[in-house]
Amino acid sequence: MIRRLCVIGVGLIGGSLARALRQAGHCHEIVGAGRSPEHLQQAVRLGVIDRFETDPARAVQGADMILVATPLGAMRGVFAAIRDHLADDAVLTDAGSAKGCVIEAAQSAFGGLPPGFVPAHPIAGTERSGVAASFAELYRDRRVILTPTATSSPQAIARVRTMWEAAGAQVTQMSAAHHDEVLAATSHLPHVLAFVLVESLARMQDQREIFEYAAGGFRDFTRIASSDPVMWRDICLANAAAVQAMIERFLGDLQVLDQAVAAHDGERLLELFNRAKTARDHFQQQSPADPNDE
Amino acid sequence: MIRRLCVIGVGLIGGSLARALRQAGHCHEIVGAGRSPEHLQQAVRLGVIDRFETDPARAVQGADMILVATPLGAMRGVFAAIRDHLADDAVLTDAGSAKGCVIEAAQSAFGGLPPGFVPAHPIAGTERSGVAASFAELYRDRRVILTPTATSSPQAIARVRTMWEAAGAQVTQMSAAHHDEVLAATSHLPHVLAFVLVESLARMQDQREIFEYAAGGFRDFTRIASSDPVMWRDICLANAAAVQAMIERFLGDLQVLDQAVAAHDGERLLELFNRAKTARDHFQQQSPADPNDE
Repeated sequence: MIRRLCVIGVGLIGGSLARALRQAGHCHEIVGAGRSPEHLQQAVRLGVIDRFETDPARAVQGADMILVATPLGAMRGVFAAIRDHLADDAVLTDAGSAKGCVIEAAQSAFGGLPPGFVPAHPIAGTERSGVAASFAELYRDRRVILTPTATSSPQAIARVRTMWEAAGAQVTQMSAAHHDEVLAATSHLPHVLAFVLVESLARMQDQREIFEYAAGGFRDFTRIASSDPVMWRDICLANAAAVQAMIERFLGDLQVLDQAVAAHDGERLLELFNRAKTARDHFQQQSPADPNDE
Repeated sequence: MIRRLCVIGVGLIGGSLARALRQAGHCHEIVGAGRSPEHLQQAVRLGVIDRFETDPARAVQGADMILVATPLGAMRGVFAAIRDHLADDAVLTDAGSAKGCVIEAAQSAFGGLPPGFVPAHPIAGTERSGVAASFAELYRDRRVILTPTATSSPQAIARVRTMWEAAGAQVTQMSAAHHDEVLAATSHLPHVLAFVLVESLARMQDQREIFEYAAGGFRDFTRIASSDPVMWRDICLANAAAVQAMIERFLGDLQVLDQAVAAHDGERLLELFNRAKTARDHFQQQSPADPNDE
């Protein structure tokens, strides 16, 4: 049970957690914080938060649970602003899509890693953003990965886990470094490929015709290129090393394919496509279709 | 109105056209041809064709419309087999996903391009294949591109157009070379990227975990990697020049992105992602969602 939840950054991610916890009866009071009063007023009107502050230092006062759900690029500033205003029993967590960079930001802002700090990543989202797009069911049966630091206290870890479970999520745990590698492969690389593909086609001379003849498969394939550009810029910068490693691995594999096409090596192409189809079909059986995304 | 339709290759594509034309009352008799009697018997049982021949030379006798819907790699052999057995008024068309190679195959098998030959490409399909997956609505409101040759007769072009319109399709026309470039961009390149991505991840050490944490966006993005590997090998070989050109264009664009990540050039990343999102959102508005694919 949370006495006072403070959500810094009341958008799709923070707003949906607030809705879910309220619906589950898991917290008494929800305070929102952010830079835009209009946006926060909208969140109050929608019943997502009870009240708001535009100064994060004031917002966190008396809160026993603080979720930082801003873009990755804003987290260091938030940590620095709230550092001297946290309650003694405050647990601090975040919802960033990369974890190493959040830990670095906390380390530098706090001058060390507080025992109440438990980095986390809910693997959920849609192409839409903003509090108006938030809904209580976003996290139901979705995975949340906790990446505790060496100094995270067992009590703080347990409280963050309980919070996400109350929102319906399946909570797992791994190191921040491993998280960043896994997500670079399954989320960051595919998003980068989709963005580059769409941008590349949009620069072609007959782009109007190109998009006109694009069918359903293309639409699904490029849907993630509608995601928030600022968020994805931040992810690419925040998880640069792992993202670069995956891009370069992919470049190498695509060059091999290119050579097989150039050499008319049908056997090699078939072998590669067969392995991909087998892996995809196997993976698909294990995880049923689902409208959500990241 | 078709007197006798001969479908060579009764799978998803040929079977769905047969079903659609029967449902529209657009043909009297449908003869199937293929290599597997069991498969053709199934097509008869499903009511997709009236009867079948395993010898294409016999199958085309007396047919006034012939659709070759085999994999691209089999078309040259089919053309050679039927060459001396076509009725005088026979119109010959195909459903191949690349067009230059089909025209070359016809040229070499016929020793010239017959006036009754009208190459075409229905832009429709699903990841599933085989006659059991066929359905009459596959082509409804989907595009079919005719790529007539210099010698295609206006009458033959009109009859192929009328046939696809009877199946509910929107028929357009362009040169084979232009078709092959447009499709390399909108269909062949995305399929190649999806195959390479899934195969690349499947080779990673922690592939089980990788796929476990892959969420909805990844599933949509890689759905086309479940498509028929033989068909996609054939497409890559048949449209090799255009596919290679697109792969190499993409490789260059991805290298630029990689350099931007390496240089922490957030401005450049944001600019690129914004252009992609704008193009994707604009394109999405123009073409509503649709369950079909190619």
